[in-house]
Amino acid sequence: MLFRCSGSGDVAGVPVFGCNCPACARARRDPRHCRGPASAEIDSDHGRYLIDAGRHDLIQSCEQRRPRAILLTHYHADHVQGLLTLRWGVGESIPVFGPRDERGFDDLYKHPGILDFRPPLRAFEPCDIGGLTVMPVPLAHSRPTFGYCLQGVRRRVAYLTDTVGLPAETERFLRAFRPDLALIDATYLDGQDAGSNHNHLGQALALLAAIGTRQGVLTHLGHRLDCAALEGRLELPQGRWLAEDGQTWEI
Amino acid sequence: MLFRCSGSGDVAGVPVFGCNCPACARARRDPRHCRGPASAEIDSDHGRYLIDAGRHDLIQSCEQRRPRAILLTHYHADHVQGLLTLRWGVGESIPVFGPRDERGFDDLYKHPGILDFRPPLRAFEPCDIGGLTVMPVPLAHSRPTFGYCLQGVRRRVAYLTDTVGLPAETERFLRAFRPDLALIDATYLDGQDAGSNHNHLGQALALLAAIGTRQGVLTHLGHRLDCAALEGRLELPQGRWLAEDGQTWEI
Ligand SMILES: [Mn+2]
Ligand SMILES: [Mn+2]
Ligand SMILES: [Mn+2]
Ligand SMILES: [Mn+2]
Ligand SMILES: [Zn+2]
Ligand SMILES: [Zn+2]
Repeated sequence: MLFRCSGSGDVAGVPVFGCNCPACARARRDPRHCRGPASAEIDSDHGRYLIDAGRHDLIQSCEQRRPRAILLTHYHADHVQGLLTLRWGVGESIPVFGPRDERGFDDLYKHPGILDFRPPLRAFEPCDIGGLTVMPVPLAHSRPTFGYCLQGVRRRVAYLTDTVGLPAETERFLRAFRPDLALIDATYLDGQDAGSNHNHLGQALALLAAIGTRQGVLTHLGHRLDCAALEGRLELPQGRWLAEDGQTWEI
Repeated sequence: MLFRCSGSGDVAGVPVFGCNCPACARARRDPRHCRGPASAEIDSDHGRYLIDAGRHDLIQSCEQRRPRAILLTHYHADHVQGLLTLRWGVGESIPVFGPRDERGFDDLYKHPGILDFRPPLRAFEPCDIGGLTVMPVPLAHSRPTFGYCLQGVRRRVAYLTDTVGLPAETERFLRAFRPDLALIDATYLDGQDAGSNHNHLGQALALLAAIGTRQGVLTHLGHRLDCAALEGRLELPQGRWLAEDGQTWEI
C-alpha cells in the first residue's frame, strides 16, 4: 500500500503569488519546490483514495486513475475547491466522506453532480470507505475537522491537518495508536504572527514528540518555513522532515 | 488594444471529467481543443484587465503580468474560483469590480487578502476601472450578472455571459451600441435538455442577429456543441464561430 503527500502547502501555496522571497523564487525556477494545497492519496489493491480535494490538478489526476472514494478533512476552500469542477463529470458516482458540516462549501450539497456525499463520519468510529478502513479523529480548527488514522499493510499512519494543537481525546487516542508515520500541520514559523487556526513549528514538533511517532512529517507549510530552511535557520530533530509534494511512503 | 478569450468552456469544461465522447477524447489528445472556465482578458497600454477569474491557471497567468483590475460578471464558482488562492498573494492590492451581490463567494468578502472589492457597478453607468472604461449591462441569470461593453481603439466589444436571453433594456442598449465583436453564452445544443440559466445555440444566434453584430462568437460552450461540430452537425451562419481558448482580437 502507498501513502502519498500530493500537496504540502498552506492556503497560499509556494510560490506565493507576487512574492519574491528566496523560497518562492526557487519554486518558480524549479517546480520540485512548489507546494500545492495540502492533500494526500492512498493507493491499495482495492483502489485509489484521496484525502482532500483542493489541489489544482485534481481533474487531471482523477482522469489518470479514478478515485474509489474521497475523504475530506473539512470544508475550507483549499481542501475542497477541486470538487467545484469534478462534480460535473460523468460516469459512476464518487463517494465523499467527511465530518458533519451543515454548510459544506458553496453549492456542493445542492448540486453534487457525480459526487455522492455520504452521511457524516463519527469521531473515533472506524469506517469502511469502500475497501479501506479509516479512523476519524477530531482536530482543533475553525470548522469541524477530522484527522485520519489508518493501518497500512506494514505501517500505521496518522494524517493531522488542519489543526492548532490537538483535542485531549485525540492526543490520547494517538498515544495509544502510536503511528509509525504522522503528517501534521506546521503552517507557521515560531514567532511568526499568525491566526489561531494552525500550528507553529514548535507546537507541531511537541505534538509529534507527545504522540511518540518515529517518522514525523510537517505539512500545510507556508513559504516562511521554506525560507528558514533555505537560509539554514531551521534545525529539525531526528526523524522530522518538511513534507514535499509527491513524496510517497510504502505503508 | 487586444481582447482575448482566455476560456470558452461551460462549468464542466472540455474535456468533461470521465467523458469519452469524440470531443472530450480529442481535447485529451490535443490541448488546443480544451475549454477552460469562461473568461477574457484585455491588454492595453494602460495594463492588463481580466474579465472573470475562474480559470485554473489564474495564478500563473497573473504572475506573468499582474492585472491592473479584475472585472467579474457574477459570483458563480466557475467565474471566481481562482480568487480563492490569488487573494493570499502579496504586493499591491488588485481592484475587483462587479455587480452587487451580498453573498459573494464563500469567504472572499470576509478575507479578501490582496483583493480590493470596489463598490458594486451600476447598470448602464460607464465606469473607469483604472484606465479602461466599461459599460455594465444586466444579463438574465440565477445570480446578479453583468455583461460588459467596451470601446476599443478600433472596435466595440460586447461580452455577454452567463445569460439566458437578454433583458429588454440590455437588448435595446446593444442594438444602439452595435458592437463589432460580441461574445455570447451558447452553452447548450438546440434540443438539449438543460437548466434555464444559459442560452441554447439557436437562442444565442437569434440574439446576435437582433443586436446586429458583424462578428459573433459563441462561448461558455459545453462538450455537446464540440461533438456536433466535430461530426459535421453544426451549421453556423456567416460571421458566427465557436470560441477557442486563447483566441485574440485586435480591438
Ligand atoms: Mn482549514
Ligand atoms: Mn488548509
Ligand atoms: Mn453562472
Ligand atoms: Mn458560468
Ligand atoms: Zn515567498
Ligand atoms: Zn464529452
